[in-house]
Amino acid sequence: MSLEISKRGKNMPASPIRKLTPLADDAKRRGVKVYHLNIGQPDIETPLAMRQRLAAVPNVLAYSPSAGTHEFVAALIGYYESLGLEVTADQVIATTGGSEAILFALLACADEGGEVVLPEPFYTNYSSFAAIAGLTLAPVTTRGDDGFHLPARALFEKALSSRTRAVILCNPNNPTGTVYRPDEVQMVAEVCRDRGLFLIVDEVYRELVYDGRKPASALSLRGFDENVVVVDSLSKRYSACGIRLGALVSRNRALIDAALRMAQGRLSPPGLAQIAGAGMTDLGPEYAAGVTREYEGRRNLLYDALCAIPDVFVRKPEGAFYFVARLPVEDGEAFARFLLEEYALDGATVMVAPAEGFYATPGLGRNEVRIAYVLNQQDLRAAVRVLAGGLAAYRAKESERLGGPSRRLVS
Amino acid sequence: MSLEISKRGKNMPASPIRKLTPLADDAKRRGVKVYHLNIGQPDIETPLAMRQRLAAVPNVLAYSPSAGTHEFVAALIGYYESLGLEVTADQVIATTGGSEAILFALLACADEGGEVVLPEPFYTNYSSFAAIAGLTLAPVTTRGDDGFHLPARALFEKALSSRTRAVILCNPNNPTGTVYRPDEVQMVAEVCRDRGLFLIVDEVYRELVYDGRKPASALSLRGFDENVVVVDSLSKRYSACGIRLGALVSRNRALIDAALRMAQGRLSPPGLAQIAGAGMTDLGPEYAAGVTREYEGRRNLLYDALCAIPDVFVRKPEGAFYFVARLPVEDGEAFARFLLEEYALDGATVMVAPAEGFYATPGLGRNEVRIAYVLNQQDLRAAVRVLAGGLAAYRAKESERLGGPSRRLVS
Repeated sequence: MSLEISKRGKNMPASPIRKLTPLADDAKRRGVKVYHLNIGQPDIETPLAMRQRLAAVPNVLAYSPSAGTHEFVAALIGYYESLGLEVTADQVIATTGGSEAILFALLACADEGGEVVLPEPFYTNYSSFAAIAGLTLAPVTTRGDDGFHLPARALFEKALSSRTRAVILCNPNNPTGTVYRPDEVQMVAEVCRDRGLFLIVDEVYRELVYDGRKPASALSLRGFDENVVVVDSLSKRYSACGIRLGALVSRNRALIDAALRMAQGRLSPPGLAQIAGAGMTDLGPEYAAGVTREYEGRRNLLYDALCAIPDVFVRKPEGAFYFVARLPVEDGEAFARFLLEEYALDGATVMVAPAEGFYATPGLGRNEVRIAYVLNQQDLRAAVRVLAGGLAAYRAKESERLGGPSRRLVS
Repeated sequence: MSLEISKRGKNMPASPIRKLTPLADDAKRRGVKVYHLNIGQPDIETPLAMRQRLAAVPNVLAYSPSAGTHEFVAALIGYYESLGLEVTADQVIATTGGSEAILFALLACADEGGEVVLPEPFYTNYSSFAAIAGLTLAPVTTRGDDGFHLPARALFEKALSSRTRAVILCNPNNPTGTVYRPDEVQMVAEVCRDRGLFLIVDEVYRELVYDGRKPASALSLRGFDENVVVVDSLSKRYSACGIRLGALVSRNRALIDAALRMAQGRLSPPGLAQIAGAGMTDLGPEYAAGVTREYEGRRNLLYDALCAIPDVFVRKPEGAFYFVARLPVEDGEAFARFLLEEYALDGATVMVAPAEGFYATPGLGRNEVRIAYVLNQQDLRAAVRVLAGGLAAYRAKESERLGGPSRRLVS
């Protein structure tokens, strides 16, 4: 007798960022070098100040308090203080990456059958956590032509329904690289306050803002303490994705109390990560400034290089380390597969993330891909050269398949 | 306007193991030494073979594959092989502790509104994960007088309903220390097969079996590959609770595939933990044998000491490192509070976990506490002396309060 798994197990979305990984593995087995622009895994070193703390770990690697060790939570609070944000220990739960903070936030904000509004395209894994929590994601579409900025309030509010319990903003945004202006964040906060909604703000790219922008946080908003729930992570800020350490921060006591009980259920956040993470106290503001400068240089390089590829459309992103690029192809996933399965330039190819999976509205994003600038400038230059070559080869092939050399697939 | 959190957030259970922690902290601030018998945090050192791997971590602490690093999964498979269990890499998902394996298993086995049957008393955090997954726990009551062994099949089946999707067995059992006999496990497996249910077996105490018993696993059952889902963890086996590393193991492909998609949603299991955990390959069978011998000695000591306290009832547990003891008190939680708030012997007191929270049936377990033998024998001896003194003092106080020196609170 074959045993049926749950419907939610069957419907759990596969990661659109990782689902082409087997094709990349095949390419590597064929000896092809693969430039990974598909995943937000930077090549920048995790600070030595963190890694060296692992040289002396306790002899018993014991449970930590469910909300995090005193040492790590104090380091986090010191970090917020350095940004002018007043956060107390009872407003913080250390979590297993930003991922767990998102899950706890969703579970605490909404019951099964509820709805969460968010701009699309959005970080695809929100879908996974919404599926676990039994929630529907209701998108507010944003467009590359507007730099993926938010529509006016009246349009934004159209996405709300009687089932809406929260809004998610990812700021700076993954996948678009958009940094919402203060008036945009204020607008969404006011919608939340007026309509009795939580505002979950995913700020894991907080420092990565360019062109003279300063790191901002929804924790600095005045008058929205009940609404605001911030998701944080050490992954991107300290190039420490693998340690899985983040935080949930809110001044809403009932919400933090519920999240703490969830945290007790899973006992502790990762302990070795907290030992390493506490090393953030040894890093001055020059650390973040240096990292931001590095990414800004990469963004500039990639922006110029992408603009130089015929019929590719991008706006210059303001933060994070992603572009959503519109390509002259019908199906971004087919193109991404082509790059991995059929194309190589001087023995190398490139992996990008098809953007369709970042949209909830069917059909949107089919001709877009997300590109992460997580390689050094030399590799990035080489990767874009491969991308440009691959795109030309793909268009030639498609054009031939469709029976005419001049047919434009996308106007 | 006060913003209401979700019903599930409000109803999320607090940990009965950790909820008295503030009282223990107060006692420590008053200068009282607290022997912690409330939580399964052993004092045994995490193996050096694991800790020393942290001396050389990569410069970039990157995401690992969602199902775990090749190195760690290979180490796990080698470990299963050493027990005669054939497990392949595509049957394993490395998880953030056994905790996450439980959550993934529940989500994949049952949809919201479903029911999971399990013997009570049970590991309290199953309640937290059931609450997250929107599931009800339906208990099969087991009794101290039977050593908390399972009832006969007919009685066991009475707990099943049309909504039942899975059975959870924790074997060796937390909190009772019971090791189910092969015929008991077989009976439950047959019930699951006959009724189309998943059998989730939590084996995180697998090695800790005494009196000559051998470590066993439901993975060795023949004919139940579709049903069996094993939850595993390094926490207890290697005294590495804080690293948060475990695994979900099943030969049911659809289930593992669903769990993998959940795992992709949260990106990776903790990376530093996997580096340390891979050190298990350096530990021969003598490691587990030594740890088991140590716990067996503690069990023997504690059993004799508890039996010597008037009116305390325990059966000798067969595995894990817990006792559920029936005490001559009406309310185990009031007694546990008394120990922390009012009692000390030679400047020390003891913390135990009230057992009521380990039962789903209201009223059961009120006069029971869970005692973990996670201290060395000298401390354990001292702790039981405090427990005995505290119990006498509490009974005297209660007896006075109730107006008669001879009144027995519990027969």
